[in-house]
Amino acid sequence: MTDTTTQASPFAPLHDPSSRGFASDNYAGVHPEVLAAIVAANGGHQVAYGEDVYTARLTEVLSEVFGTAAQVYPVFNGTGANVLALQACTPRWGSVLTTSSAHIHVDEAAAPERVGGLKVNVIDTPDGKLTPELIRAYPARVGDEHFAQVGVVSITNSTEVGTVYTPAEIRAIADLVHEMGWVLHLDGSRLSNAAAALGVELRELTTDAGVDILSLGGTKIGAMLAEAVVVLSPDRVTGATFLRKQSMQLASKMRFVSAQLLAIFEGDLWRRNAEHANAMARRLADGVADIDGITLPTEVEANAVFPILARESSERLMESFRFYFWDETTGQVRWMCAWDTTESDVDSFVEAVRAELS
Amino acid sequence: MTDTTTQASPFAPLHDPSSRGFASDNYAGVHPEVLAAIVAANGGHQVAYGEDVYTARLTEVLSEVFGTAAQVYPVFNGTGANVLALQACTPRWGSVLTTSSAHIHVDEAAAPERVGGLKVNVIDTPDGKLTPELIRAYPARVGDEHFAQVGVVSITNSTEVGTVYTPAEIRAIADLVHEMGWVLHLDGSRLSNAAAALGVELRELTTDAGVDILSLGGTKIGAMLAEAVVVLSPDRVTGATFLRKQSMQLASKMRFVSAQLLAIFEGDLWRRNAEHANAMARRLADGVADIDGITLPTEVEANAVFPILARESSERLMESFRFYFWDETTGQVRWMCAWDTTESDVDSFVEAVRAELS
Amino acid sequence: MTDTTTQASPFAPLHDPSSRGFASDNYAGVHPEVLAAIVAANGGHQVAYGEDVYTARLTEVLSEVFGTAAQVYPVFNGTGANVLALQACTPRWGSVLTTSSAHIHVDEAAAPERVGGLKVNVIDTPDGKLTPELIRAYPARVGDEHFAQVGVVSITNSTEVGTVYTPAEIRAIADLVHEMGWVLHLDGSRLSNAAAALGVELRELTTDAGVDILSLGGTKIGAMLAEAVVVLSPDRVTGATFLRKQSMQLASKMRFVSAQLLAIFEGDLWRRNAEHANAMARRLADGVADIDGITLPTEVEANAVFPILARESSERLMESFRFYFWDETTGQVRWMCAWDTTESDVDSFVEAVRAELS
Amino acid sequence: MTDTTTQASPFAPLHDPSSRGFASDNYAGVHPEVLAAIVAANGGHQVAYGEDVYTARLTEVLSEVFGTAAQVYPVFNGTGANVLALQACTPRWGSVLTTSSAHIHVDEAAAPERVGGLKVNVIDTPDGKLTPELIRAYPARVGDEHFAQVGVVSITNSTEVGTVYTPAEIRAIADLVHEMGWVLHLDGSRLSNAAAALGVELRELTTDAGVDILSLGGTKIGAMLAEAVVVLSPDRVTGATFLRKQSMQLASKMRFVSAQLLAIFEGDLWRRNAEHANAMARRLADGVADIDGITLPTEVEANAVFPILARESSERLMESFRFYFWDETTGQVRWMCAWDTTESDVDSFVEAVRAELS
Repeated sequence: MTDTTTQASPFAPLHDPSSRGFASDNYAGVHPEVLAAIVAANGGHQVAYGEDVYTARLTEVLSEVFGTAAQVYPVFNGTGANVLALQACTPRWGSVLTTSSAHIHVDEAAAPERVGGLKVNVIDTPDGKLTPELIRAYPARVGDEHFAQVGVVSITNSTEVGTVYTPAEIRAIADLVHEMGWVLHLDGSRLSNAAAALGVELRELTTDAGVDILSLGGTKIGAMLAEAVVVLSPDRVTGATFLRKQSMQLASKMRFVSAQLLAIFEGDLWRRNAEHANAMARRLADGVADIDGITLPTEVEANAVFPILARESSERLMESFRFYFWDETTGQVRWMCAWDTTESDVDSFVEAVRAELS
Repeated sequence: MTDTTTQASPFAPLHDPSSRGFASDNYAGVHPEVLAAIVAANGGHQVAYGEDVYTARLTEVLSEVFGTAAQVYPVFNGTGANVLALQACTPRWGSVLTTSSAHIHVDEAAAPERVGGLKVNVIDTPDGKLTPELIRAYPARVGDEHFAQVGVVSITNSTEVGTVYTPAEIRAIADLVHEMGWVLHLDGSRLSNAAAALGVELRELTTDAGVDILSLGGTKIGAMLAEAVVVLSPDRVTGATFLRKQSMQLASKMRFVSAQLLAIFEGDLWRRNAEHANAMARRLADGVADIDGITLPTEVEANAVFPILARESSERLMESFRFYFWDETTGQVRWMCAWDTTESDVDSFVEAVRAELS
Repeated sequence: MTDTTTQASPFAPLHDPSSRGFASDNYAGVHPEVLAAIVAANGGHQVAYGEDVYTARLTEVLSEVFGTAAQVYPVFNGTGANVLALQACTPRWGSVLTTSSAHIHVDEAAAPERVGGLKVNVIDTPDGKLTPELIRAYPARVGDEHFAQVGVVSITNSTEVGTVYTPAEIRAIADLVHEMGWVLHLDGSRLSNAAAALGVELRELTTDAGVDILSLGGTKIGAMLAEAVVVLSPDRVTGATFLRKQSMQLASKMRFVSAQLLAIFEGDLWRRNAEHANAMARRLADGVADIDGITLPTEVEANAVFPILARESSERLMESFRFYFWDETTGQVRWMCAWDTTESDVDSFVEAVRAELS
Repeated sequence: MTDTTTQASPFAPLHDPSSRGFASDNYAGVHPEVLAAIVAANGGHQVAYGEDVYTARLTEVLSEVFGTAAQVYPVFNGTGANVLALQACTPRWGSVLTTSSAHIHVDEAAAPERVGGLKVNVIDTPDGKLTPELIRAYPARVGDEHFAQVGVVSITNSTEVGTVYTPAEIRAIADLVHEMGWVLHLDGSRLSNAAAALGVELRELTTDAGVDILSLGGTKIGAMLAEAVVVLSPDRVTGATFLRKQSMQLASKMRFVSAQLLAIFEGDLWRRNAEHANAMARRLADGVADIDGITLPTEVEANAVFPILARESSERLMESFRFYFWDETTGQVRWMCAWDTTESDVDSFVEAVRAELS
């Protein structure tokens, strides 16, 4: 499809569409099925700001996917989804409890604090995953007006360090969180990768495991720009409609955001893309496993590999294959696979790493 | 293009692509050239968060358009553009001065206040337009710590009530604003319509007229979802890079936002679409001018018509043609034309109005 | 008492304790009974942050005064009381509806917006007083996510322009406010003056009239620095304990704030001081009533007089008696009487005005 | 003085003025000299909101104390001072770097986040003190828009855990902070105790050591309720006048706040009170040093003792002497001495501890 279209158009790409690296699943483009869905949603007039048929259909679809009468709020990006979700399930004075590696803590530029007034309290973890034990040990000082009162616990699945929570692990956290009178939020920017890794349905990691509110990722799994806040426990959430607008996350031509999410979640595109990206990460990890000078301190559970190698080697490799340092002090790097990473991409990269380190 | 694509795709439209009304230019879809530009930007990897070639090219293009070394910050929506711009040109304690009909005052759900902590001070106007006289008469209490200190004056062009500022009118405001030590912001959600209406270049209404910072609209003029903050006076603005991220307006796959704006502003698509929409509004106003029971209290200067007719007649018309009441107490309604409004759409509507009121 | 103490102390006043003007009731000092109460509360240790016996006693006393199980939150100042109260009775996305002359709108430097994220929507009034008619005519766009949703209506009694709401007037507003599902806040910075003017009890203007939450003023009526948020409808208010601390209004040595309020409200000091201040304003208005060149456009209902006279005359008078212009365009000034204004102060001033204008 | 006054007054204490514990220096009352200064400032009218002679005099005095043209902003409480100071020296998007034991992080209920939008980034320390090494090791990601950008480093002296920074230690931090382009804030809630402990002047710990902006504590050292933000590097700070009002920390009858600070800092009351409180803590630590079952893991440097003893013993002791657990998991408690702690108070407590643990 894309070929025909671009030939017919006066718009030539400014970039090389055959070039791919391992920097981020945000570097990838839009999956053809998503693009086709955008095109199908075009033409004519549709009511703006979410009263369109695509958004209505999305709510139906996600209610089936999550197995409950889900409330669905399409938004623009992951930070928007997280900050909207966290505001909607906490009182004005509530704060957040999460891991010290959480995206909301280290990669959202204090948006939770500035937009939501939400203090982000953190717990250090070895693997990016909270546990009931870690939460119980946290000195939350419940009821003490001098201390930022936790209102919501936020977990990420798959995590920022590439690990995956199982349904049972989430359920254990949810039970404690609810016992405390708090709400459980899941940053599901890469929820598809987690579900694909475990071979489970999305609802097993969310609704069935006790998650109350979800940031559902579309962009990293093949959308152009589409995320959604999905409310699974409506009685624990309030005002999301008003807060989305106030938080500047209400799209006027929302049909195009919803159409992207429909393309991904109405069928199994989310799973196909995630299984592929995960498999590519597995292939990459396996490919470099026997290379001297590479260590893999953590298991590859989703679509990211976090190896340690000599800093200078990484810098030379980066000249041909874009990727990031994760921890400059140890030499750990992040290699991220996307829905469009090919076996050939991986194999070429493995060869380059092998050549560099030999 | 769309026909071919949708035939090849499993995604059938859920709506009638031939149906259009007069409710809003946000109800329209995406112009084919914009869609083609999105497609052209797809494929391969591009650095996320704005370090892509499309965003770089957009900065070049807008620097040419605005005739200065513009700083360009693509964002998701108009509220995001406005609140980012207003924060970036005011100190923490600064507030905004604008009209009581301004979008930032009545249609952004207190986003300026909640996200930016920006009080919005307003002045009533007969026609949605500030003047130096109105600003001078405003009791701004400069230096008085008890009163919210104005840091920025915000005007909208074309205005929320369909009127248009000329370059000379903006220049007069800019001179006073700068004399006061303030900054001039222009909400250019419909800047293309204003420029087309006057037959001037975009820079004549902005850079050349003394505007310091601009919210440049793409969505209403044919984009899917693309706006930008354009900084014209860099020495009066600070921190926009950090504020965009904090305000949750930083797109990961930004190339697709920038590509849309390129499609509109690199050539003359903005002017073609705006001239067309304006002409349709003119045709609509002319068409109903002689109908008894309709009055047109304001001149049609851009792409909106604000007639007054019997409330019951409007309600019956709305059953077939979607549009909104503007002032329920007077019976004033708003008829908005878009880039895709056809002569036939207008003529059918005029006939329906004539039939209703005869 | 003060005489003895200052003689025994090495601290000599830096100012002339016999000089008084008509600028503000905030220019006055501390009533001797309040000072005595502070002294009585001193010595030994008391639990900080409000768990002291003076604060406990204050809650008992104010529950008697307001005729309900009042929740009492002593705070530092009026802005703090207002912003705390408004936050505690609105959801995150709620906004405020008040008059355009309200202190929270024109004299609190955008604190409601910046600290509380609260947009302040305003209605123009001729006399600083809202009415059910004015509120009904306000286009509140209930349920429209694009418009800042009203959560609380705020009135001031006595008002910023010296007028007084009667219990019946407040009740009529309260009924409408509750019918809308909103909350009624009363800025009672000068509530004592209003009650004294009408000869009613404080509860008749608050609890009995349907007020839900109250900013109770102490400073202007003889305290050094003491205000309180008093919650009259606990089911409409939430989180005030946490919000007071977050809003930086929690005093560590709170016993001294509560002791001041006890001195004023346990007995009838509030009424004695208010009746006196009101009487002085009445005396002042009567004294100048027959002077040519003075007009009194509004009735004197509390402790302020708002006459109009020649601007140059005011400027000359200000050299000897401090007071403020209220509206420089009309020449209207504000003469405020305090608990410590003497008959002699008033008479001297009347003579000066008479001399100036003759 | 208090005796005579309370006898003459109708206000009898509701508490036992002879009872004191070891819970907090906030439990203590007002020093007689401070009370005398309040009384001396009473009477007559003084311009409100800081244009009074006491505040003017305070600025002179603190300029002498700090050896520079200090800008002085009296405020109500410590949280207010800190949040005002941190806002005034950071841009909108700036965040704070401090220790994980900092009061602004664990005891201010997210006021920095909610009022200032300030993310508080923290570094763990063994003793509550930052060092250049710790700051250098912090991954501040300067210039990375995804990470909250540090604008100010905040240290506390004496620290929350009773330790004291020397002038040289502060200077080393200041040099690094300034090299980074940041600002150095000092939370001086107990600055007097630190200076007294080291036998240095206040300016040696602040101005001379490179501190840019200071929260100067009055309340804990004998005031009723008085703190101040003192700006030592005016070119690094902006808008404090407006931010104080917006942050609801502007006292109307400010003369009484300034008079308290004058009583403490014009002469040597700060040093007398601090030396006494420090000596009492030393006496207490020495008194229990030889008791079996007590360990003192940290040196007593200011007015606090942080011993570890059996939890049950602490709970029994708390029935007679109020104090707090510091770390319930280890049994560490905090014993705080105040300006009014007597040798007899200490000796009685030591005997009680000895009896409990024998």
